Amino acid sequence: MKVRAWSTSANLGPGFDVMGIALKAFKDVVEVELGGGGPDALVTRVNGPYSSSVPIGRDNVAAFAAKAALMMAEQKLTAKIKLWKGVPPRRGLGSSGASSAAVVKAINLILGDVLSEEEMIKAAAEGERAAAGHPHPDNVAPSLLGGLVIIGERIVKIEPSVKFVLAIPWIDIPDRKTEAMRSILPRKVGMGDFVANSAALAMLVLGMTTGDLEIAGKGMSSSMVDKLRSKMIPGFKEVKEAALRAGALGSSISGAGPSMLFLCDECEPALAAIRRAYISIGIPASVMVVEPAEGAAGER
Amino acid sequence: MKVRAWSTSANLGPGFDVMGIALKAFKDVVEVELGGGGPDALVTRVNGPYSSSVPIGRDNVAAFAAKAALMMAEQKLTAKIKLWKGVPPRRGLGSSGASSAAVVKAINLILGDVLSEEEMIKAAAEGERAAAGHPHPDNVAPSLLGGLVIIGERIVKIEPSVKFVLAIPWIDIPDRKTEAMRSILPRKVGMGDFVANSAALAMLVLGMTTGDLEIAGKGMSSSMVDKLRSKMIPGFKEVKEAALRAGALGSSISGAGPSMLFLCDECEPALAAIRRAYISIGIPASVMVVEPAEGAAGER
Repeated sequence: MKVRAWSTSANLGPGFDVMGIALKAFKDVVEVELGGGGPDALVTRVNGPYSSSVPIGRDNVAAFAAKAALMMAEQKLTAKIKLWKGVPPRRGLGSSGASSAAVVKAINLILGDVLSEEEMIKAAAEGERAAAGHPHPDNVAPSLLGGLVIIGERIVKIEPSVKFVLAIPWIDIPDRKTEAMRSILPRKVGMGDFVANSAALAMLVLGMTTGDLEIAGKGMSSSMVDKLRSKMIPGFKEVKEAALRAGALGSSISGAGPSMLFLCDECEPALAAIRRAYISIGIPASVMVVEPAEGAAGER
Repeated sequence: MKVRAWSTSANLGPGFDVMGIALKAFKDVVEVELGGGGPDALVTRVNGPYSSSVPIGRDNVAAFAAKAALMMAEQKLTAKIKLWKGVPPRRGLGSSGASSAAVVKAINLILGDVLSEEEMIKAAAEGERAAAGHPHPDNVAPSLLGGLVIIGERIVKIEPSVKFVLAIPWIDIPDRKTEAMRSILPRKVGMGDFVANSAALAMLVLGMTTGDLEIAGKGMSSSMVDKLRSKMIPGFKEVKEAALRAGALGSSISGAGPSMLFLCDECEPALAAIRRAYISIGIPASVMVVEPAEGAAGER
């Protein structure tokens, strides 16, 4: 059973830890075989463009997620996983989440759809716990379900008709980046920031749901968490300003960065401006137009 | 020029200080005449069911709002205001906001629509500053514009097809209630509460925008601010539980209370259950089914 799952961008600015979107930019593909013994799981082979960045064996996040899925399904089986690693790790693009989502979806398909969406998300989040110390579902949920996902008391999905420019700076990334980017955040938020971020989030959701991209973009760009983290993102200010001047409607850090996501209607001028901005500050970056992706699914 | 403006319910649970909805429950009606001198404004007569609760003269919130509107329009005129007071004050129903919205709308109509929506909201919020010490726009904005309004960097309005049960307990209200209810709130919010409230708000907006009332109701009911304030609202727990058991989809304190608002699809069972709950705890209350109202407008 071969399954692909797409890259994702969490937060979209004000939706910290409650929102993520699947993006048709990069994908992981897994091939899973279930055998006897277990529950157990291991990655037996990794190839693809980012194969050197992730481990083989039981330490791969996909193995943690697969084992969690087998335990949740109460199956004494062993998953042998071949992983084609296409989502660049450590760029804020849900790379570990894509591996976890793909493997959980594959196991669920083999077992005959025994797990609910919520259970799949929970199992895949165990891969995130292994990757970042915290089972946050804001990458695995959109990677599994596709579209824009809100993770609250319920998991809700919408499929907005939107385009983005995605920018991936190829800078060196410190170890334990996600934890470091979380440690920047305060334990407590002032009431003024709370209200301002709430307003931005409400505008983002309203705009994404109604298709009013100008409103969505205004909301996306006004995030308390992005404001705190922006100093840690190389080129944040220059690139954001260039993008908005070139007609981008909104801007956010993708997950914990360093990638950035720009909402746009006509994307070509923003694409060109963002490329120029990274060049002028001397940071190599890939810049591309992307659309929302569908959920994890079988692939030939 | 005679103008009416409807009662409003601010917050809807997780939308503290960023959201309000106009409700076709109660209305204020003003009759405004502009004369020479000024900018100045005074209420010359108050009648209607709640006339005894509000002052005559320059101390009425409508006078503050009217003067702000004249100043904003740069008009050296004096507004003489007759007020029919139909929105019960101090119940969390935007009573002062309705007076302010009506008078600002009337002046703008007389002057030939010289003020933008944003300017009208700003002028009307000066009435709120006089009433509660804080020019918060979450009542005046929906009272002026109608529907459900999100107040952020932009003012955005949607017109959801929804019904509510509105419950107004006729208990004694302490002086300076709104300030007291604000003082309950902490200066800082824990990150966990911030994320949980964000998820609830995203669900509320998504549900209201797409018409998924179950999702909207789940979001509405999970509010950090309501949780903190609930102990100050007589009957909060009993009435909320009774309403949800009877099929209400969501529940929130209306503004700073003591009124409560319940989202419902079939409202009759919830209406009956809420009535019974107030009776069983010995609190006299008016309980009614209400729909969103249109914005402030001329009335014959």
